[in-house]
Amino acid sequence: MSENKILKPTTIIIFGATGDLAKRKLFPAFYNLYIDGRMPKGFNIVALGRADNTDEYFKNYIKENLESFSRKKVTAEDWAGFQAHITYFQHQLDEEESYKNLHKKLDSFDTVYGTRGNRLFYLSIGPNFVSTISNHIKNTSLASDAEKDRIIIEKPFGHNKQSAIELNSLLAETFEEEQIYRIDHYLGKETVQNILAFRFGNSIFEPLWDHKHIESVQITVAEEVGVETRGSFYEQTGALRDMIQNHLLQILCMIAMEPPASIESGEIRDRKVDVLKSIRRISADKVDYYAVRGQYGKGTINGVKAKGYRQEDGIAEDSNTETFAAVKFYLDNERWQDVPFYVRTGKKMKEKHSYITIQFKPLPHSTFSESSQLLSANRLIINIQPLMDIRLQFMAKKPGLSLVLKPVEMIFDNFACQEDTPEAYETLLLDALIGDLTLFMRSDQVEEAWDVVKTIQEAWENNKDSSFPNYDAGSWGPEDSFALVERQGHNWV
Amino acid sequence: MSENKILKPTTIIIFGATGDLAKRKLFPAFYNLYIDGRMPKGFNIVALGRADNTDEYFKNYIKENLESFSRKKVTAEDWAGFQAHITYFQHQLDEEESYKNLHKKLDSFDTVYGTRGNRLFYLSIGPNFVSTISNHIKNTSLASDAEKDRIIIEKPFGHNKQSAIELNSLLAETFEEEQIYRIDHYLGKETVQNILAFRFGNSIFEPLWDHKHIESVQITVAEEVGVETRGSFYEQTGALRDMIQNHLLQILCMIAMEPPASIESGEIRDRKVDVLKSIRRISADKVDYYAVRGQYGKGTINGVKAKGYRQEDGIAEDSNTETFAAVKFYLDNERWQDVPFYVRTGKKMKEKHSYITIQFKPLPHSTFSESSQLLSANRLIINIQPLMDIRLQFMAKKPGLSLVLKPVEMIFDNFACQEDTPEAYETLLLDALIGDLTLFMRSDQVEEAWDVVKTIQEAWENNKDSSFPNYDAGSWGPEDSFALVERQGHNWV
Repeated sequence: MSENKILKPTTIIIFGATGDLAKRKLFPAFYNLYIDGRMPKGFNIVALGRADNTDEYFKNYIKENLESFSRKKVTAEDWAGFQAHITYFQHQLDEEESYKNLHKKLDSFDTVYGTRGNRLFYLSIGPNFVSTISNHIKNTSLASDAEKDRIIIEKPFGHNKQSAIELNSLLAETFEEEQIYRIDHYLGKETVQNILAFRFGNSIFEPLWDHKHIESVQITVAEEVGVETRGSFYEQTGALRDMIQNHLLQILCMIAMEPPASIESGEIRDRKVDVLKSIRRISADKVDYYAVRGQYGKGTINGVKAKGYRQEDGIAEDSNTETFAAVKFYLDNERWQDVPFYVRTGKKMKEKHSYITIQFKPLPHSTFSESSQLLSANRLIINIQPLMDIRLQFMAKKPGLSLVLKPVEMIFDNFACQEDTPEAYETLLLDALIGDLTLFMRSDQVEEAWDVVKTIQEAWENNKDSSFPNYDAGSWGPEDSFALVERQGHNWV
Repeated sequence: MSENKILKPTTIIIFGATGDLAKRKLFPAFYNLYIDGRMPKGFNIVALGRADNTDEYFKNYIKENLESFSRKKVTAEDWAGFQAHITYFQHQLDEEESYKNLHKKLDSFDTVYGTRGNRLFYLSIGPNFVSTISNHIKNTSLASDAEKDRIIIEKPFGHNKQSAIELNSLLAETFEEEQIYRIDHYLGKETVQNILAFRFGNSIFEPLWDHKHIESVQITVAEEVGVETRGSFYEQTGALRDMIQNHLLQILCMIAMEPPASIESGEIRDRKVDVLKSIRRISADKVDYYAVRGQYGKGTINGVKAKGYRQEDGIAEDSNTETFAAVKFYLDNERWQDVPFYVRTGKKMKEKHSYITIQFKPLPHSTFSESSQLLSANRLIINIQPLMDIRLQFMAKKPGLSLVLKPVEMIFDNFACQEDTPEAYETLLLDALIGDLTLFMRSDQVEEAWDVVKTIQEAWENNKDSSFPNYDAGSWGPEDSFALVERQGHNWV
């Protein structure tokens, strides 16, 4: 997240370069950084794939996809400059010989750089291959310089607490913690980063930011899409692992964290871990009280009929995988005592909408007695996507002859001009090139986050939900998710 | 300010009905209330004037002026209905016979109403006539029913504390305090009334509303106009008496007051008097330190050359009257200790703009060290006129790849559609018809407000300002008014 650092020559090695993420996100991000002059002076992208492709074939494939997925326009001139930095390299993930050949290739770039360049390994592959690749990198000394070499790993980072610990210790054999960039692309979003600016760049919000003034916090990440082509992956994952353990808990951390002394990465990651540690663990027998799971049946989204989850490709007819999860968390610390943090996420919901609601407490006493029934408590809404604004809801005088109040809204739209707004991956890849770990997850963050959801995960794995499917595609989720908040007098807003 | 009360039949008696205020404000206000169905079912407006005019002549004169000054369009149908309620009545302010005749006229309306109607006396005349009129009303028993009769008095209410006390006691011979409506039209403005709604209808502002969170408060009422045709009146008045003693101190009260238990008028007026009492009195030898006066010389406003004050009609060549005043007040109470309240007002300023600035304290510590020099402290701006919005200035992330902050603004424009926004006089006249005193000044408020400015008034009367004229028409006032805030590290914003 720092600026104006001079970037050292870097070779970027993408494992899984022919995959979906690479074509949709990684190459477009590098291309846009290149146009913005943010790539290092000397850089090479080595695209690894199993097939015997030519450079030309691969570059054409990338160019076509850039035209669909790049934020900025693909011009002949920019492309000509950019493509010269791409090399396709045939590579077998599980063959040591492949890594040795790769070593020679990387050395050849260093010769051109005139120095040992930085190396950024991007693991855009399934989680099962992380240990294989990491071992080979170690055995072939591909990442021999702890100061210069970094590895970026995509989620899911393990599938539970135990496997995350094992993965961390495996990576630790090859990389120092400071070399490991565990990516959570939600943290790269402008609107999510703005939470830090909003909370700690202003003096007027922090005094209100506690249990004395806040009634509840809600975090919603609603998707309109279903599992698409990811059915067999999703069957092994579910909403709790896919979304809550990472994205939603990370957003919760940014809302709940204590003010960091600085934006130095260690400091911010420390404050986030503090939050995760403070989350009250849900005992096994209370899971049903604090957590709700759902699975969509058939329904209608935007007037179009939609299949149920169990009818999607690659999904078992009696699947017990949750496509919706809602949890009520409490934080046992000074600031947040007794304030419920409601989080929910689901697929095939009524609309795509990710947002945070800070619901303030109602007035202790209403001066305006006659219209007291109309007084709404204040609310701050931070829209993450697709809306990217901040809304403050408050009461004002209704224009007219009498002093009657009405709820109104103040809107701040920082990112109205989306053309200028970098994609999350641009921000995160630049940070990784610079060496700024702030927006990446440290091993202890990942392990704590798994620990937070551990009992829920176990309960849901061990007990089938006989009510599945329990919400219609195109709805806002199962009935029980409403009951979860309503029994405390709250509402999803 | 209450709603839906059934209004009793009322006769409105306007002293000075041929004057400027009546044609520009009073008749348009009654006309608009009439169109909105807010006038009592039975009502008559008795327009008093010295000249021997016919009803027809006077009504034509009112109709012409309505076409210029009415907020809503004058249609043939509405006018036909409205004009039937107007009676012109020749009247000599200082002749008892005139009042006796008026008495018969009012009784004749009561006969038609079938009940003793309410009587609302509007004194739209110079302050010198208040005692004459009040005495005659008493002697001829025009206002014999304390439950039904009310008197509205325009500012200036006295010219200093002593004369205000005398006027109050004189009025008390004829009227109970609850019958006296001392009008300050600023309090009828939508944007000023909204301060109450904003502060006490929301839970999130009050916790920030004190010396711990607020660095300073600024109230500016800048006029572009000069003294126009009011030269000889203004020579006797000046900015301190004409604006600060009433409008600016009343606004200050609404910003600084403690939360009232209810919006009942006694309660709100009590809380305002508390503020006036808490204002630290400026000792005679410190006037120059806390207060700045100015008088405009020639200059340019919006590209047009403007005369100096001393060159205006009816102004002495060596006039010592101030056309600008700025004062720094402190409130000696728990909430506002050490928070300067800067107020300023002037004529022939750069632009017409009335607004309140709540300047919050800077952050105690900047998390964002690299860009700390760019962090602006939060600011709430309440625009009164001609802009009528509320703006919250805060820091947000600058869209882009780095976490750099920039100051941004959230705007709430309640009154964007000015067509729907009643004029201050509509609100205040309706309140007087209903019998709601909240937005009018009680005797103790007026006397305390005079007490607040007493030493300044005396110092400025007793000492000529040899620097006059000391600001150019079309500027933001004299140099010293900037020094007043700058020596405490502040700025007019």
